[in-house]
Amino acid sequence: MSDFARLGRELEAVWHREIPISAAMGIRVADYDGRRLVSRAELAPNVNVHGTAFAGSLYAIAALCGWGITWLTLRNRALDAHIVIASGHIDYHRPIAETIVAVCTLDPDVHREAFEKLAVSGKTRFPLVCRIGAGESSAATFNGDYAVRIIRASAND
Amino acid sequence: MSDFARLGRELEAVWHREIPISAAMGIRVADYDGRRLVSRAELAPNVNVHGTAFAGSLYAIAALCGWGITWLTLRNRALDAHIVIASGHIDYHRPIAETIVAVCTLDPDVHREAFEKLAVSGKTRFPLVCRIGAGESSAATFNGDYAVRIIRASAND
Repeated sequence: MSDFARLGRELEAVWHREIPISAAMGIRVADYDGRRLVSRAELAPNVNVHGTAFAGSLYAIAALCGWGITWLTLRNRALDAHIVIASGHIDYHRPIAETIVAVCTLDPDVHREAFEKLAVSGKTRFPLVCRIGAGESSAATFNGDYAVRIIRASAND
Repeated sequence: MSDFARLGRELEAVWHREIPISAAMGIRVADYDGRRLVSRAELAPNVNVHGTAFAGSLYAIAALCGWGITWLTLRNRALDAHIVIASGHIDYHRPIAETIVAVCTLDPDVHREAFEKLAVSGKTRFPLVCRIGAGESSAATFNGDYAVRIIRASAND
């Protein structure tokens, strides 16, 4: 198993152990390539009165995807951090009647200034975008602002 | 039991029956007075890695509170409607380490224009604010934009 796959498994275990509602939603790590996290959840536990995906589940899955890619990125740099979301916004473009897929990318080039701030002060913010929907056009678009504070370098640093 | 209390019970039953994740979150109707809906959920099923309320649960509880007050207001006018959230925004001001309380008001005076549009076209939008937190200062503030389309007058109309 690659390091990325191992970290992805570790993230999923943290979600299910420490955020019980993520287990109830059935949120899984589908793919992590070092830059991009894909998470997914079956429709059934997240259905709403219309038989499509519940808006609150879509937000929660997107918010966890953003939190997850931040956690993975920092772990990958051997940094343990306190990560909290300060604000979130979601636009729903169309209903989802299939498996929910969320994709979030944290690109070191795009977020260069945020990483520089982290290196200098041990604190930063990552504004992240998460797209929901398996097709070509997003079913929902999430924007989250994540506040990060380094606790310490990991044991494996 | 008052009509308001009966409608509140009915809303809670709809949530738990048709939105299974709302039952997993333990969302309950605490009070409805014809204008204002108070919903609540225990912390335990909604906890996060920090031992406080999960941001995704807070959003979901607030979004359901806004959906709920819209559903109740229309039912109270003997209208069955298709209610969907078009967009949502939430600002997290401080962590919550106690029972989650969400409050949303749909005031006919404040939303007079939206009701007039509904009467004319059978469609409207309600921009609603939901405050989260039991204390004097909100722990989070949610803004949701709800799109409403009347299906038919209820059987008891």
